[in-house]
Amino acid sequence: MTTTTQIRLAARPVGEPQDTDFEFVTTDLPELADGQVLLRTIYLSLDPYMRGRMSAAKSYAEPVEVGDVMVGGTVCEVMESRSPERAVGDIVLAYTGWQTYAVAGARHTRKLDPQAAPISTALGVLGMPGFTAYAGLLAIGRPQPGETVAVAAATGPVGSAVGQIAKVKGARAVGIAGRPDKCRALIEEFGFDAAVDHRSESFREELAETTPDGVDVYFENVAGPVGAAVTRRLNKFARVPVCGLVANYNATQAPEGPDQLPAYLGAILTLSLTVRGFIQSEFVPTHHDDFLRDMAGWIADGSVRYREDVVDGLDNTLETFRGLLAGRNFGKSLVRVGTDPTIA
Amino acid sequence: MTTTTQIRLAARPVGEPQDTDFEFVTTDLPELADGQVLLRTIYLSLDPYMRGRMSAAKSYAEPVEVGDVMVGGTVCEVMESRSPERAVGDIVLAYTGWQTYAVAGARHTRKLDPQAAPISTALGVLGMPGFTAYAGLLAIGRPQPGETVAVAAATGPVGSAVGQIAKVKGARAVGIAGRPDKCRALIEEFGFDAAVDHRSESFREELAETTPDGVDVYFENVAGPVGAAVTRRLNKFARVPVCGLVANYNATQAPEGPDQLPAYLGAILTLSLTVRGFIQSEFVPTHHDDFLRDMAGWIADGSVRYREDVVDGLDNTLETFRGLLAGRNFGKSLVRVGTDPTIA
Repeated sequence: MTTTTQIRLAARPVGEPQDTDFEFVTTDLPELADGQVLLRTIYLSLDPYMRGRMSAAKSYAEPVEVGDVMVGGTVCEVMESRSPERAVGDIVLAYTGWQTYAVAGARHTRKLDPQAAPISTALGVLGMPGFTAYAGLLAIGRPQPGETVAVAAATGPVGSAVGQIAKVKGARAVGIAGRPDKCRALIEEFGFDAAVDHRSESFREELAETTPDGVDVYFENVAGPVGAAVTRRLNKFARVPVCGLVANYNATQAPEGPDQLPAYLGAILTLSLTVRGFIQSEFVPTHHDDFLRDMAGWIADGSVRYREDVVDGLDNTLETFRGLLAGRNFGKSLVRVGTDPTIA
Repeated sequence: MTTTTQIRLAARPVGEPQDTDFEFVTTDLPELADGQVLLRTIYLSLDPYMRGRMSAAKSYAEPVEVGDVMVGGTVCEVMESRSPERAVGDIVLAYTGWQTYAVAGARHTRKLDPQAAPISTALGVLGMPGFTAYAGLLAIGRPQPGETVAVAAATGPVGSAVGQIAKVKGARAVGIAGRPDKCRALIEEFGFDAAVDHRSESFREELAETTPDGVDVYFENVAGPVGAAVTRRLNKFARVPVCGLVANYNATQAPEGPDQLPAYLGAILTLSLTVRGFIQSEFVPTHHDDFLRDMAGWIADGSVRYREDVVDGLDNTLETFRGLLAGRNFGKSLVRVGTDPTIA
């Protein structure tokens, strides 16, 4: 018998998730059935979309039920196998959530090659966040050489990839982040053309100065006041892939007025904007093979760099998740739940 | 010397345009130069976009300057010609605005064939409003057979064409209008599948009942509470061509809260919506020839019907325009400024 320690949703959070909204449970795992594997969690990915899964509100995926283990992408080691497709010791990408061990169908895992790339990247630049950036920017944003691409949360795994892919495509990349050290990293580490700190008192003026030709693609992943400021810089026929709205995720009611929707629709009309929401899964059939090939190449040739923010221990998951929603992370947020055997 | 009576913008309206925002001026027209024609206005088109032209705010076209004649599409008779391309007696489409006579370059007019269609239709179903419906619905909305298309201001020249073209393409058409007689006309005259009166106390329930499979295309030309109600009915991957926002045109400031923008962006994200503003001129190069051929055919075979709301006399222009913004017209709003020689 293997036991697993799980973080289960105990109540639906109102506003920022509290410790009392979750419970830690240690429980026995069932015996493996044919085709299943026993997985030990190495890395757990923390992503903003998880806030939506904690709520009962209609979203693009079913909510986590109260009493269930919180969902999430993981990189795991195969400890036992009753599938010919997976061997003990294999490192796999899985979706086993906030827990230390899990039983899963082998077919719901993807085997990773630790020689090709660090295994944690399967949750970041070579995983869902990287693909979100790739698909949203290229399929919806369609940046042209010489155009300006703006993105917020720009040191995050999605934002940093958006800016760097924009550069690969010949566009100008302007990143928005929430701390001076993040802004420095945008320029020095990720090669953005300009960086703006949205916590600066002169944010709007700095945004205008760093987008002298306006903005042709705004990759929207935060909304709120940052989104409003970028909207004022949009050019005619600009494209706005809407990937996330972190600024609103903890909101408990519609904010006080005035109502900004009429002005937003007015901008859509007068500028002939394209605003398009998307979930990366829509583009898997058409773009995922290209993504894996392109992104691996860009990492290899140095066009795309990435940064990870790794916290050790499942116990720290919730505090790390709150920090993610508040922008306290710096790079792709990961919890190292157990030892990474590929690191010497 | 020919004199013309003009309606000039005297002040930028605040809210609903007032009589004092305009002045009537009678003035001499200049002699014709080479290539010019003297035009007598027969029909003046009144369209919601004109409210935007009265304001100094950034829009998709330059504002009318205070002191200038209000702009607008017209159907005119050629009274004198110094162009080999136009003969006296020709009926032409022009853009000579709110006045009884005008001098224009012959090349800025398009000759109409009174035998092919009533000349007033060049300002409606076969003109800019019809093309707005055609291009926005087909290039952006892309209704598929069996899908549901919803449109408000549905007895207007754009809305009625949207619903009828949707039917031609095999979609279900649901029209929203503001009076019982308009709703009856949607069913009996324009062949919509369902009609809903947005002034009904049970509007939201009726909208839900008449869109049991949700809404796949919402042709947005009003916004406001009607737009908000339809947004709640949108299906995943729905398309929203944004063509106009009549509900907001007279607004003098952002409405009181709560702020509806976060919820709207939330819908865009969770439903993977495409919201796309447009001005019909964008699609002239790619779609206008097809439009003229298709629409003439649909009128000829009875697939598309149209209704005009003709008011006589330039003196009545402003009151008619205020009625248009308030939804008091019923069909394409036209002012018959002078005698129509093609009507027996």
